[in-house]
Amino acid sequence: MFEKLANMKVFRDPIHGYVHVDLRIIWELIDTFEFQRLRRIHQLGGTYQVYHTAEHTRFSHSLGVYEIVYRMVHEVEDLKRELSDFEKVCVMVAALLHDIGHGPFSHVFEPIFDTNHEEYTVQIITGNTMIRKILDKYDQRIAPNVAMIINHTHPNELLTQLVSGQLDADRMDYLLRDSYFTGTSYGNYDLERVLRTLRVVDGKLVVKESGIHTIEDYIMSRYHMYWQVYYHPLSRCYEEIVKAFFKRLRYLYDQDPTSIEGFPMFLPFIIEHPVPVEKYIQLDEPASFYGISLATKHTDKILSDLARRILERDLFAVETYVDQELEEARRVAVRDAGYDLEYYFHVDETIQIPYKPYASKDSDTIMVLRENGECKELSLVSNIVAAIVKGEVKDEKKMFYPKRIIKK
Amino acid sequence: MFEKLANMKVFRDPIHGYVHVDLRIIWELIDTFEFQRLRRIHQLGGTYQVYHTAEHTRFSHSLGVYEIVYRMVHEVEDLKRELSDFEKVCVMVAALLHDIGHGPFSHVFEPIFDTNHEEYTVQIITGNTMIRKILDKYDQRIAPNVAMIINHTHPNELLTQLVSGQLDADRMDYLLRDSYFTGTSYGNYDLERVLRTLRVVDGKLVVKESGIHTIEDYIMSRYHMYWQVYYHPLSRCYEEIVKAFFKRLRYLYDQDPTSIEGFPMFLPFIIEHPVPVEKYIQLDEPASFYGISLATKHTDKILSDLARRILERDLFAVETYVDQELEEARRVAVRDAGYDLEYYFHVDETIQIPYKPYASKDSDTIMVLRENGECKELSLVSNIVAAIVKGEVKDEKKMFYPKRIIKK
Amino acid sequence: MFEKLANMKVFRDPIHGYVHVDLRIIWELIDTFEFQRLRRIHQLGGTYQVYHTAEHTRFSHSLGVYEIVYRMVHEVEDLKRELSDFEKVCVMVAALLHDIGHGPFSHVFEPIFDTNHEEYTVQIITGNTMIRKILDKYDQRIAPNVAMIINHTHPNELLTQLVSGQLDADRMDYLLRDSYFTGTSYGNYDLERVLRTLRVVDGKLVVKESGIHTIEDYIMSRYHMYWQVYYHPLSRCYEEIVKAFFKRLRYLYDQDPTSIEGFPMFLPFIIEHPVPVEKYIQLDEPASFYGISLATKHTDKILSDLARRILERDLFAVETYVDQELEEARRVAVRDAGYDLEYYFHVDETIQIPYKPYASKDSDTIMVLRENGECKELSLVSNIVAAIVKGEVKDEKKMFYPKRIIKK
Amino acid sequence: MFEKLANMKVFRDPIHGYVHVDLRIIWELIDTFEFQRLRRIHQLGGTYQVYHTAEHTRFSHSLGVYEIVYRMVHEVEDLKRELSDFEKVCVMVAALLHDIGHGPFSHVFEPIFDTNHEEYTVQIITGNTMIRKILDKYDQRIAPNVAMIINHTHPNELLTQLVSGQLDADRMDYLLRDSYFTGTSYGNYDLERVLRTLRVVDGKLVVKESGIHTIEDYIMSRYHMYWQVYYHPLSRCYEEIVKAFFKRLRYLYDQDPTSIEGFPMFLPFIIEHPVPVEKYIQLDEPASFYGISLATKHTDKILSDLARRILERDLFAVETYVDQELEEARRVAVRDAGYDLEYYFHVDETIQIPYKPYASKDSDTIMVLRENGECKELSLVSNIVAAIVKGEVKDEKKMFYPKRIIKK
Repeated sequence: MFEKLANMKVFRDPIHGYVHVDLRIIWELIDTFEFQRLRRIHQLGGTYQVYHTAEHTRFSHSLGVYEIVYRMVHEVEDLKRELSDFEKVCVMVAALLHDIGHGPFSHVFEPIFDTNHEEYTVQIITGNTMIRKILDKYDQRIAPNVAMIINHTHPNELLTQLVSGQLDADRMDYLLRDSYFTGTSYGNYDLERVLRTLRVVDGKLVVKESGIHTIEDYIMSRYHMYWQVYYHPLSRCYEEIVKAFFKRLRYLYDQDPTSIEGFPMFLPFIIEHPVPVEKYIQLDEPASFYGISLATKHTDKILSDLARRILERDLFAVETYVDQELEEARRVAVRDAGYDLEYYFHVDETIQIPYKPYASKDSDTIMVLRENGECKELSLVSNIVAAIVKGEVKDEKKMFYPKRIIKK
Repeated sequence: MFEKLANMKVFRDPIHGYVHVDLRIIWELIDTFEFQRLRRIHQLGGTYQVYHTAEHTRFSHSLGVYEIVYRMVHEVEDLKRELSDFEKVCVMVAALLHDIGHGPFSHVFEPIFDTNHEEYTVQIITGNTMIRKILDKYDQRIAPNVAMIINHTHPNELLTQLVSGQLDADRMDYLLRDSYFTGTSYGNYDLERVLRTLRVVDGKLVVKESGIHTIEDYIMSRYHMYWQVYYHPLSRCYEEIVKAFFKRLRYLYDQDPTSIEGFPMFLPFIIEHPVPVEKYIQLDEPASFYGISLATKHTDKILSDLARRILERDLFAVETYVDQELEEARRVAVRDAGYDLEYYFHVDETIQIPYKPYASKDSDTIMVLRENGECKELSLVSNIVAAIVKGEVKDEKKMFYPKRIIKK
Repeated sequence: MFEKLANMKVFRDPIHGYVHVDLRIIWELIDTFEFQRLRRIHQLGGTYQVYHTAEHTRFSHSLGVYEIVYRMVHEVEDLKRELSDFEKVCVMVAALLHDIGHGPFSHVFEPIFDTNHEEYTVQIITGNTMIRKILDKYDQRIAPNVAMIINHTHPNELLTQLVSGQLDADRMDYLLRDSYFTGTSYGNYDLERVLRTLRVVDGKLVVKESGIHTIEDYIMSRYHMYWQVYYHPLSRCYEEIVKAFFKRLRYLYDQDPTSIEGFPMFLPFIIEHPVPVEKYIQLDEPASFYGISLATKHTDKILSDLARRILERDLFAVETYVDQELEEARRVAVRDAGYDLEYYFHVDETIQIPYKPYASKDSDTIMVLRENGECKELSLVSNIVAAIVKGEVKDEKKMFYPKRIIKK
Repeated sequence: MFEKLANMKVFRDPIHGYVHVDLRIIWELIDTFEFQRLRRIHQLGGTYQVYHTAEHTRFSHSLGVYEIVYRMVHEVEDLKRELSDFEKVCVMVAALLHDIGHGPFSHVFEPIFDTNHEEYTVQIITGNTMIRKILDKYDQRIAPNVAMIINHTHPNELLTQLVSGQLDADRMDYLLRDSYFTGTSYGNYDLERVLRTLRVVDGKLVVKESGIHTIEDYIMSRYHMYWQVYYHPLSRCYEEIVKAFFKRLRYLYDQDPTSIEGFPMFLPFIIEHPVPVEKYIQLDEPASFYGISLATKHTDKILSDLARRILERDLFAVETYVDQELEEARRVAVRDAGYDLEYYFHVDETIQIPYKPYASKDSDTIMVLRENGECKELSLVSNIVAAIVKGEVKDEKKMFYPKRIIKK
């Protein structure tokens, strides 16, 4: 049904050796404006401020997720059997496009401008885009099916699990990839063996008990990557400054719309709601950085200072604390030094939430297939995982503020 | 003389394990606008269009070159002995800053706008910049000494050899780094062993004969990286399109200066000559890509088409040929199809120059220290290297033109 | 005091890049009969029956442990300062020689013949050996000091901790090495970072709190290596067969001393007690395998069958069970099939003991140095480690018996 | 035709990730005495005396060669199409068993005792062995076909090329494996890409021209491995001592047969000619080392000294020279010091033969498939390879003699 390329195309990839493309539809999707745009959005936001080699983008990650799903549907016997050819194509497309709606600094940008990358992912797949045109050219049922996979509303839950579950290709790729590009060893686990232990029971993806140590290792990889890389205080700090920059920009517009005339790249996000998809996909990191660069000359001192800090990596001090009174004391000191607390004092709340490897809702757990045929939830089988799940909340918090406040 | 940091600072790096910083001067140089700007310039220009993970920047490469020189002056006995503390600091600074004058797409940009990244490197070190201020704070002799190292005019030739010779830290880092980030194995060689075989004879860097196979392997790594990565026809093709874009931009200005008013990031390069360093360093890849992105809506069909091709990776066809008549035939076909040959037909001449591992001038050769104490030029000792040097010119050329010209 | 070699000698090593030897005493110790003998004893006993590439020996591991201690005393600031030059030499020698008393299949061999490799390690260091001669040549205080380090009786506890504590060079090397040679990723952790976080507080080795995730990763590596490699049921099974072989040999001698005349390599272990060290070190794996090979032709059916099983890798079936009655049923079946239970039925008790990352005695814990200067035991600071410590006993056991008993 | 296992069996392997076994015949061949015996023969003879981690055996290499052929017949389109199922099984069996006739220290042992491992390989496959029984159980045509593949007499030359040509699975595995286990980077090349560029033209294996740089890299890997590892003078020296040991043993028997009564493991090689296969396969490295160990107590001073040197790694001095007179002078000095030149003075002739990447006979060249469909011999297409082929003979020789002769 789906036309194959005359020759398998491959992309050299340090994580997977090669990314294999044998279907013309996949090849054409890769060469669209929307997909190529992912080359201009870093996979790990500002983490490269801490791990300087974490300069990889959502483009290479997306190819990696596609490759893992490609292997799943070609190598895992249960999936080869349970999925139809149409479903296989849909889930490979979903894997390739699962991050297509991401914008620059998504996590800090979205709360300020009230956008949501997941919604835009669906809009780019189903809206008036090059991607949609290509999908429809092959089969008009693809776009809605892929959208359902991404929305977690597809009747065949298995498809969603492959792309976005507890044991999905997304996490499988990013742990290995982020580990490789940060140069840390934390995210390493045995992908080959994980793939070999996947089974389908009652239409759901499970792992064989014999692979439980490999899965523990994978869960631990996530745990370590969260603490060592994703939650690194300096990269959070950098993102808080970026967030403060956007907050200030919005504030300035609210005070006086003409004050941000020089920032056409950000304007739609301030004045249109919701931002239409055609405008949304124009904003990438180069556009943002060009805007930030212009802002270093803005007359508003706060905006220009924040912009300068971003470009010169002049970050805030990071302080770990338990005592609420210390937080209050710092807050006063920052204010007394003449800083606007709104932009110059940040408390990292997120970090207080202990890492939960998996959520409570039923569909989002890892099930283990025991030798006797029964399936059990992972934390009931693994002491290690149970420990991570039960892990108490740390009282520690972190606060960020200008370095000159404390003289050490 | 040079203040040490209270604690050695380290940067995790996949190539070197860690980059070690123990001097405050190095630490402060890293956190300047000019050095942080290198984070926004890809190490390999458009190569990531072919090797999608080659997304690393001149920032991480510069840290890597610094680290190798740091190791050289701390681990190679002859260098520890021959260099003064002041020279050691100068050569580490030179290593860190050797690429500081690079701009986006340097190789294609410079011929169009008549700039030269090497001159800007010296200007950034000696001009009115944050970098110069820091250097002078420690010792006013540093900036001129570093400039001489980079200009190849330093009286102690050894310093230049470490940063930019046939066996320099620059190449040593980029082969390993480009290999790691492209995911190819070609650039791998045994850095540990190369460092262990370095000696100084008569004030020049040489290698012990016992390390000759390691050096052959290093030379072969360069040879393979050139053909497999740096000269890859698709990445040359991409760069030709970028070059054509800038050429068109310049042409439009010459026709009508108002036609490029919307491109403030490129203007100084067109109207000022030479571009002052303060303006030069404002141009980075984000600014360029933002400009290219704006150009997709320009009324000039050629400019907007080239911009679109860059962003959608709609590259030209690549054809290898020997026969000059075929080239002529293609040229006619392209013109007949209505394309302006100036922008839509390119012949890759560079690729015809065989790879020369080292130049003829005396200072730029690798000398081998034999067991009997005599020094001999590498190609006289190694058959392999001799073969590469003598390698005949291939007659093959490559041409690039719009894909629709030939229907395969 | 201790003569340096004219040039640093290095051994290429896949784990550490190079093993560095700069002292003549170390160089001479390596080229002794006793140390070279370690080349003929596998590091992981019979594990290469399961992980076929685990063919590395105690020789390369011993060099690796030495290299880590070499780095500790040269790179860890607190150790550089706290240890005297004499202590540094002693601890490097202790690292190199810590396994010198190991024999083939130590764990299965020792209970049968009542030998103890730790005692022989001390005897080889202090007895009438080439090693002792070399040590004494340099300084007669070395041998007794090294013996005390290995015996855990040295007044400077720090020295023992480096070689054999919870965070010792022994484990640090074997996790990485066993991981590399089995081809698994489980044993990987960040050695560089562990070394960077070591401190000495009150004469004891501790880790800085900032390195706690790295230590968790290291503990998890041990946990995984135990379950995936060291406790692998098939390698336990192989060792049980080897043990049964030696048990039978001993039994035959007790019945009739002439029956084992053809096995001179094993005789001293049966007739002399204790076996003098000169005879002890004659037994290596080649001698054992030659003996086993001869035994395939012995008239005793049990001995020759066990020998054949060892050489042809004709292992027993492995069955996991909880139910004690099933064990009893199998035992009956094995006996009814005509097998002598003593040699043909084994229950793996060891595997029921949950992995304890560290023992209860005070000196054998990992202490964490917090930012406030206080030291706390690791499991009080890390949820993950606490979980492993508390891990309940699994009820599961494993039994091994001839495959023909059950027809699956 | 050939029964598949219920589940694919896999062996973890650091070079290939996994070795895949899906046919019962392969599984059964692995668990034979003859194949398991390869665990007791080092892949690189005495190289582990120089590269201490080169402790891997012919067992793991044989699995690796099998895996590469497994991939060739499953992944290379032209081979999938050109070979029948029967041929595929035969060539996989041939890959697995290609080294089955190797004995300990083959290269030094064979000239002394006039044995030939290639002949024994064929005898073990076709003789009265467990292996033959298993092959015949499946199909009586396998053994003769496999023997013909190994003998280079099979009518389908392609089968031989896969196992033993210029671009065969044997070399492909050993370069990567020896590189991994020595810890050097020299043997690394891009196996994935080599497999992807293989084609079959006129019943012969060729490589596509687009893969030529990968092949050059592979050829260079061989070149470097030869000089850095396989021809390493210290490992040659060790082998010369082993050779001298066997030579002396043979000499002693010729003088007085009773003098070697204590060496039953070597006897058949001295008194029977040819040695029957049943006896041949009893000799492995453990048996040899046990014999060498016994010899340290032999009354013949030369035999016992050589044995001691082997076990204590008390090697000879290695001297590189050009001048024939120097050789003569050393020879005199060695004799004058009371050494028997036959055993204590060796000239390494082999090292004078330059490395030839491929021989002149037609079947043993690498052919390159050009874009125009024509096939050309590799050295005509690649300058690098041409250079290696033409490489002149070095005049340098090496000689080995007891260290005490020259006092440096």
